[in-house]
Amino acid sequence: MDVGALVFDVFGTVVDWRAGVAREAARLLGPGVDAAAFADAWRARYEPSMQRVRGGERPFVPLDALHRESLPEALAEVGAGPVPDDVAGELVLAWHRLDPWPDAVPGLTRLRRRFVLAPLSNGGVRLLVDLARRGGLPWDLVLGAEVAGHYKPDPQVYDSAPRLLALPPSRVCLVAAHTDDLAAARARGLATAYVHRPAEFGGDPVPPATDPHADLSVGSLEELAAALGC
Amino acid sequence: MDVGALVFDVFGTVVDWRAGVAREAARLLGPGVDAAAFADAWRARYEPSMQRVRGGERPFVPLDALHRESLPEALAEVGAGPVPDDVAGELVLAWHRLDPWPDAVPGLTRLRRRFVLAPLSNGGVRLLVDLARRGGLPWDLVLGAEVAGHYKPDPQVYDSAPRLLALPPSRVCLVAAHTDDLAAARARGLATAYVHRPAEFGGDPVPPATDPHADLSVGSLEELAAALGC
Repeated sequence: MDVGALVFDVFGTVVDWRAGVAREAARLLGPGVDAAAFADAWRARYEPSMQRVRGGERPFVPLDALHRESLPEALAEVGAGPVPDDVAGELVLAWHRLDPWPDAVPGLTRLRRRFVLAPLSNGGVRLLVDLARRGGLPWDLVLGAEVAGHYKPDPQVYDSAPRLLALPPSRVCLVAAHTDDLAAARARGLATAYVHRPAEFGGDPVPPATDPHADLSVGSLEELAAALGC
Repeated sequence: MDVGALVFDVFGTVVDWRAGVAREAARLLGPGVDAAAFADAWRARYEPSMQRVRGGERPFVPLDALHRESLPEALAEVGAGPVPDDVAGELVLAWHRLDPWPDAVPGLTRLRRRFVLAPLSNGGVRLLVDLARRGGLPWDLVLGAEVAGHYKPDPQVYDSAPRLLALPPSRVCLVAAHTDDLAAARARGLATAYVHRPAEFGGDPVPPATDPHADLSVGSLEELAAALGC
């Protein structure tokens, strides 16, 4: 791969959304709620909520707004009642307070010596800035759905990265723990690297160890740095 | 000022465009060309070139394209003939290779402890990333004309900062060495801070020492950090 920039899926690939959302839910909802089950219930509404934007049924709104809308159903699924607005707002901000996987900061720090680094996430710009400042993620810039005005896997999101980085698509590599994200990036000409994150869903399901269609498959961002000679 | 984010004009405010363009011009055009006069001649075409985009006469193109188009006239003005395409391309990249004013990195580094920091420049995204990586500018993210699809002082550029940072306009402060930029930001509700950069135009003209309409006027970004308690 002769790449100049690496762009990263974030939820699951760089940060552990499940542990972070569960931690904040336990703090805000108390011991009566199964916090991990709540995180899973909320995450299960992530794809359907974006689908209405992708399909053109509604204009683009940032992910915080979608999280806020899907919150009541997620709470109900785990037997938690409605919450006051201030608690709902804090729960939405749980997605801004997720911790990086242990290999993320050391791996990104090495990769940044040679490559331009940016998130290419469905999270909003402010969310991505908050995650970076909290976790010390050394991005050069923030890219993604809100900058593109579309949600992955819409092609506009993948196209926005080489356009704004002034590189041919083949010189931009998407790094992600999800094979569907990588497939959509390849369809737009990007290089791809798969990261195996067996704990993303709490161990069930366990994602595949490698993606045979990706240019590279690695077990961590430190392994990616080593594979790319950083 | 109760601000959460500071956004910065870049050319003249954070980096010394005149010395940097002149340095690259001297390297690429040789001793027969007055490199500082060439930098001034090229910069003089900056506003008119953007005006055609602002007026809707042509669609948005990044600043590199405008610089490339205005290059032949700027060369001619200083008596330099046409240059080969590879030299023209390198000259356009001179604007990616500008050095920060001496106070910029220490000032920004202090400011970043408390505030989200981003450029809000008419330079393109890649140009701003290149300046940051070259000079060590500690941005949290890159904002500006190319992200907004408009050139300052179009209101869309100023509006894009609070929108993407999820802050009220009054909690975003534009920092700039140009009073017209600050006036346009205030018209969109942003807070403003003026930085006096007497050497921007090689000493002629010398800009005013303060901007009485701005929330703050300072002589450097270190002074701004001190004024904001960083």
